[in-house]
Amino acid sequence: MIPNIPELNDTTLRSALQARVDGKTKPLGSLGRLEALAVQIGCILGTSSPRLDQPQLVVFAADHGLAAQGVSAYPSDVTWQMVENFLAGGAAVSVLARQHGLALTVVDAGVRHNFAPRPGLLHRKIAPGTADALAGPAMSEAQCAAAITAGREVVQTLPGNALLLGEMGIGNTSAAALLLARLTEQPIEQCAGRGTGLDDAGLARKLRVLRGVLAHHAQATAPLAALAAFGGFEIAMMCGAVLQAALEGRVIVVDGFIASSAVLVAARLQPAVLSRCVFAHCSEEAGHALMLRTLGVQPLLTLGMRLGEGSGAALAWPLLESACRLLGEMASFESAGVSRQSDPETDTDLLR
Amino acid sequence: MIPNIPELNDTTLRSALQARVDGKTKPLGSLGRLEALAVQIGCILGTSSPRLDQPQLVVFAADHGLAAQGVSAYPSDVTWQMVENFLAGGAAVSVLARQHGLALTVVDAGVRHNFAPRPGLLHRKIAPGTADALAGPAMSEAQCAAAITAGREVVQTLPGNALLLGEMGIGNTSAAALLLARLTEQPIEQCAGRGTGLDDAGLARKLRVLRGVLAHHAQATAPLAALAAFGGFEIAMMCGAVLQAALEGRVIVVDGFIASSAVLVAARLQPAVLSRCVFAHCSEEAGHALMLRTLGVQPLLTLGMRLGEGSGAALAWPLLESACRLLGEMASFESAGVSRQSDPETDTDLLR
Repeated sequence: MIPNIPELNDTTLRSALQARVDGKTKPLGSLGRLEALAVQIGCILGTSSPRLDQPQLVVFAADHGLAAQGVSAYPSDVTWQMVENFLAGGAAVSVLARQHGLALTVVDAGVRHNFAPRPGLLHRKIAPGTADALAGPAMSEAQCAAAITAGREVVQTLPGNALLLGEMGIGNTSAAALLLARLTEQPIEQCAGRGTGLDDAGLARKLRVLRGVLAHHAQATAPLAALAAFGGFEIAMMCGAVLQAALEGRVIVVDGFIASSAVLVAARLQPAVLSRCVFAHCSEEAGHALMLRTLGVQPLLTLGMRLGEGSGAALAWPLLESACRLLGEMASFESAGVSRQSDPETDTDLLR
Repeated sequence: MIPNIPELNDTTLRSALQARVDGKTKPLGSLGRLEALAVQIGCILGTSSPRLDQPQLVVFAADHGLAAQGVSAYPSDVTWQMVENFLAGGAAVSVLARQHGLALTVVDAGVRHNFAPRPGLLHRKIAPGTADALAGPAMSEAQCAAAITAGREVVQTLPGNALLLGEMGIGNTSAAALLLARLTEQPIEQCAGRGTGLDDAGLARKLRVLRGVLAHHAQATAPLAALAAFGGFEIAMMCGAVLQAALEGRVIVVDGFIASSAVLVAARLQPAVLSRCVFAHCSEEAGHALMLRTLGVQPLLTLGMRLGEGSGAALAWPLLESACRLLGEMASFESAGVSRQSDPETDTDLLR
């Protein structure tokens, strides 16, 4: 169920990519993080001339039993309503996917609603929502395994060499916060935030419920045990998708807090998945900055967003495209006949 | 020469834009800075349904007499060589302009080189480089006025409703640092940085030269006097372009340290230009963060870049497009049949 993900350790390729970047008509390092991004994408795709091909934005949707604990006044029905909105093209992620030519697929990982079949919707429902994590595990071990496997299979069926992760599920900032707290041993108060806009009283209630869930599942410390205990199906399925995409050498673009929680679980199982991940943005949701620090990664964008859906991943996408195009299309000093600095050895006399 | 720029104060339009943003199928405020960006663009373009049309990326190029003081080991020849590279399509900004469908125009504002005429190059040369600011003013008052007027005229000839500012000029981080130090009364040590990659000794020499220039022009405290004293032609021309674009109600996308210095001068002349400006990124060049703070603005991107050319403006462009498309294409709660939170009045019970 869990594939073995090797480290990216082709140092010859990495050096070739860095040399190619350094030969471009620009001061050394002046393209900043786009340079590292170009090198990373080249290493993931295994080529010094990386091209991103048929990027797939996959939105995993599911409901959460914990929502029944009154931690959410957005009714769970919003999950299926938003799935319909994704498919109708009216959600933020729909608009951004159109803008950037990203193929959008919505996966019913476990929504409490029966959807009519249609293009762009994959039926992978494990169950109509997880169980209430305050009463027992959100999912059984078998359901957790099935969700991870389904996530792997979804990726296997998709073309292209880049996967952008999105999600939808009323209640899923709670699941992500629980995973962060348990797997990194951070206080839940540092991990949980206001979600779609809780006030102080609402946040206090959310924290009370989450402390109860943590106490109820004190033994669930291993990654898969925690995932089963807290849910949700969309997070487990994203975890599987990350593992499969890493195995296949795809570039993985990680959206916000929820998508990152799936990567956190995947990275605890197979640390080398991280080298295949590009973290799109830092969410405004309180725990995300902590999660990114814990993972030791830097997001590309910080725009105060907290929407999920893959919206941040879609917004960051043009930067990955730019990195590849700059590597592929910029002239070198030699080809363009541009003078280098007078003393490239010591680099002492540069001024622009 | 300096047009009068009114404040954007259509509060009815601003409210209509905000209401439109707030009615979209997403938690209130969850698109973060894109929401404010959509409102700003709508206010600039004077419509609640803003569409960006025929965006123009204009790269103003010029040489700097101060480069003769040995503050730069990149020879001034790199300015014209890079202009050729822009036109041949091999520079970073050429690649990014192609990626995003930005019309690229290069303006010879004062390069020390004679270019053969060709498409995409505008001849607006004030002189072949500014004078050495350590010996006298970089440009005469008449040259400064001519450059500002030329910048205005360049914008007048261009179609579309958005202007992206770029520049090229060996030595121009020095001019920008001098303008920042003089117009904001900050120590030059806080304003000047390593440019294309000075080491400690090179930076010390640059600072020595810049202190000398500041002392030599101690009386040049007014915006236009400082601009004339320190140069350069590309900065003066961008200043004119900003004023004209603001007058015409275009969206102005400001690149890095040098482009921001032109906006600084323009804003000292006409403060309301700032409301028409979107600051694309925070450059790695030392003085840029200080300059943005001084202007009281927040950049969209922070990617460790320090290239100029308009590369940061081009990279940020898709975010402006996204802001407009989200406003135009996202469904409302009503149109999509998505439930709102149960108590929108008090907003106490939201959780996702």
